[in-house]
Amino acid sequence: MNNSSSSRIEAELEALIASASPGSRLPSTRELTARHAVSPVTVQAALRSLAARGLIETRPGVGAFVSPDRAVAPRDYSWQTGVLGATGALTAETSAALRPTRTDAISLHSGYPDRTLLPERLVRSALTRAGRSDSALERPESAGSTALRAWFASELASQTPAHLTAPNAQDVLILPGSQLGLGVLFRNIAGPGGTLLIESPTYWGAILAARQVGVTLVPVPSGPDGPDLVALEQAFVETGARAFYAQPNFANPTGAQWSPATSARVLDIVQEHRAFLIEDDWAHDFGITTDAMPLATRDDSGHVVYLRSLTKSISPSIRVAAVIARGPLRYRLLANLQAQSMYVSGLLQAAALDVVTQPAWRTHQRSVRKQLRARRDLLIDAVSTHVPDATISAIPPGGLNLWVQVPDIVDLGQLTKDAEARGLVIANGDEWFPAEPAGRHLRLNFAGPDPAAYERAAILLHKSLAAQRDL
Amino acid sequence: MNNSSSSRIEAELEALIASASPGSRLPSTRELTARHAVSPVTVQAALRSLAARGLIETRPGVGAFVSPDRAVAPRDYSWQTGVLGATGALTAETSAALRPTRTDAISLHSGYPDRTLLPERLVRSALTRAGRSDSALERPESAGSTALRAWFASELASQTPAHLTAPNAQDVLILPGSQLGLGVLFRNIAGPGGTLLIESPTYWGAILAARQVGVTLVPVPSGPDGPDLVALEQAFVETGARAFYAQPNFANPTGAQWSPATSARVLDIVQEHRAFLIEDDWAHDFGITTDAMPLATRDDSGHVVYLRSLTKSISPSIRVAAVIARGPLRYRLLANLQAQSMYVSGLLQAAALDVVTQPAWRTHQRSVRKQLRARRDLLIDAVSTHVPDATISAIPPGGLNLWVQVPDIVDLGQLTKDAEARGLVIANGDEWFPAEPAGRHLRLNFAGPDPAAYERAAILLHKSLAAQRDL
Repeated sequence: MNNSSSSRIEAELEALIASASPGSRLPSTRELTARHAVSPVTVQAALRSLAARGLIETRPGVGAFVSPDRAVAPRDYSWQTGVLGATGALTAETSAALRPTRTDAISLHSGYPDRTLLPERLVRSALTRAGRSDSALERPESAGSTALRAWFASELASQTPAHLTAPNAQDVLILPGSQLGLGVLFRNIAGPGGTLLIESPTYWGAILAARQVGVTLVPVPSGPDGPDLVALEQAFVETGARAFYAQPNFANPTGAQWSPATSARVLDIVQEHRAFLIEDDWAHDFGITTDAMPLATRDDSGHVVYLRSLTKSISPSIRVAAVIARGPLRYRLLANLQAQSMYVSGLLQAAALDVVTQPAWRTHQRSVRKQLRARRDLLIDAVSTHVPDATISAIPPGGLNLWVQVPDIVDLGQLTKDAEARGLVIANGDEWFPAEPAGRHLRLNFAGPDPAAYERAAILLHKSLAAQRDL
Repeated sequence: MNNSSSSRIEAELEALIASASPGSRLPSTRELTARHAVSPVTVQAALRSLAARGLIETRPGVGAFVSPDRAVAPRDYSWQTGVLGATGALTAETSAALRPTRTDAISLHSGYPDRTLLPERLVRSALTRAGRSDSALERPESAGSTALRAWFASELASQTPAHLTAPNAQDVLILPGSQLGLGVLFRNIAGPGGTLLIESPTYWGAILAARQVGVTLVPVPSGPDGPDLVALEQAFVETGARAFYAQPNFANPTGAQWSPATSARVLDIVQEHRAFLIEDDWAHDFGITTDAMPLATRDDSGHVVYLRSLTKSISPSIRVAAVIARGPLRYRLLANLQAQSMYVSGLLQAAALDVVTQPAWRTHQRSVRKQLRARRDLLIDAVSTHVPDATISAIPPGGLNLWVQVPDIVDLGQLTKDAEARGLVIANGDEWFPAEPAGRHLRLNFAGPDPAAYERAAILLHKSLAAQRDL
């Protein structure tokens, strides 16, 4: 069932229906199957959707027809408006990083690695095995499968020095994706109305989760070497905050990795202020020239809460992540996760563990590292050569993105629209700032489709920038 | 990867380690594999977990040994206590309905249907197909796959009378399980500090979700015919609440189904008070003598918000549910779901749709209905015959449970413990009351393992009750 094909066919048929007379006949399933090079199931999904929406009627064995009577009076739901009250900070708009990839444009906006960078063979065989196992039909414990929890613990334990107590399986809770983990952590550590220190710029999904919880975000400027330590210390003193959210390894969007000295100092500051460091190790599997060195391996005092997802590196369909927390917090989180999601699909847990324990997983990781390096360098070359107005302040040692600064006079909204009209989709850097943006930036993803198009992308970006200068 | 086998082996080895001297050798993987009749992978998962917990050391090619130095000094995390503050109403205790089924006892406590009642063949073949499809590697839209959304809409549309506008795919949002949906609905409709009317007794997971959100629950007594309409009206007037949470079809725990007259009157009351009815159609697939008749098919004014899960009827591993909402609420929910979970695994969405669109799904449903009827009647017979102290006030026309009242003098905590000691696991009815329980009840699940044991279960229950009378 290919969702995007089915949506595409649905959209095309919708356009056809809009201009057709009521009762007229749609092309047959056979015609549509052939035209779109998809399976009959996909075509039927589109027809089913159109039928559910009342746009067509299907007569089995005869065909599909434009509904004779499809002018449904629009309903008035305005009574809800007063009941629901003010909207808060959330809207249903989709972030640039989540927008579907256009096939007719060069896409540098996505937050996800292209399918060619995923371990497709491993994923498919793991899913086949999991589908045959008991995990397909049994309910795992709320905290997660013991074996998968042990794997997450052992990953950190292998990097933990001998004088510290390494985390164990009991400290691990499995999550249906790290986004839910962000919300649960922010709610239970900072709480609605509470304060959270946060790197700036940082992951837009974390900013979104904090807004939903109703946490006040206090930005701490963060550059290629990590957060400004003076600002961090000051923010703790001034706000009395009890937590700092950060991505110490290959931060989104900058790709920055903290130096060991910075990491040690941040741990000191956090401990001094009896606070938590919420460490989001989102790019653990995306080291390019160095490996991720989680701060969680340097703390056994319960100050670091560690969040790690497998979704981005294994497959978007394997929604499995883990939070590692020690002390009373762990119980607090477990109670809240149970109330929020009960448990994570055992099938997905089994498949995830299967993938990461195969020898081929290491081989795949080495290959991804090489590809990311080549893609990163290609994009840097292209931008440096063709976009004189763009500044790359640091070469990311890991992650999926290049963080590019453009002149302050640039209107980013106009720029992204203009670039899209020319066939290039890029992400407006403003989304990564928890408060006012410090300068005009673009996030260019080098893990998307078709790296061969980077040069053309850079030329289109230059043209779009030049168009603004000419105004 | 069988989680429960692996946990079992781990528990057994842990006991062995506790009594063994440091450095001594564990049984070989081959011995353990044979003893537990499991695969080497399962044994290795147990060993890996023990190693991650520091209890054993594995030396590749040699074997596993009890750690020479496993007395790790317990760490003090008490600094967290002040930072985290009061706990709220949540604890990490596991509800009776979620506790793992003991293999050596008769289990009438679970909230999930036994594996023999699941469409195992359909699930496995759907997972195989999904694992080969694009859904295994692609990211679906946040709202869910169009085809699956259309299916959920068409299910309601097929029961919607012609004079009402039926819901369409655009009104549907796919969820990673209905528990997350309960939290999102309660948060956005009632809100922290807000008021929610709720049937009493009702689903413990809904009570838990409401507590997590910080909603004040106002119980409305509900019996075999549905809620007390006078009490419902009065509660709306007195509290100014904007929502009522209910399970109109085969309510958990009573199995009650509202009459058409009650349904119509509840809709009137809800509309009069400009309020939402949060309709949890959890047992849509578990009709026994009647079919589910959702109130959502009787409303097109946006007053009914409909929640429907496929997890219980398809498989615990297929964590897929849907919320159907119209009007501004739908946008509010979408924004919040995006912030909370981004999207639901496309693989699970594809597998769920595959199962429910197979002709064999209908055959399976008919077979489940027959089995549930036989199991229900068997349990009722056993309880009526052997437990004179138990009162069954209504025969449930659907659902998975029998709701049994016992004399007021019974100490339910003592009773469930005593029954468990005799080899019978039952659920203390207090968990299903949002406030003080109205009488002493037990929830007996007739969808668990081994219906042949119902007679023995009833005899054990009688003995446990009799033991209390004798005190």
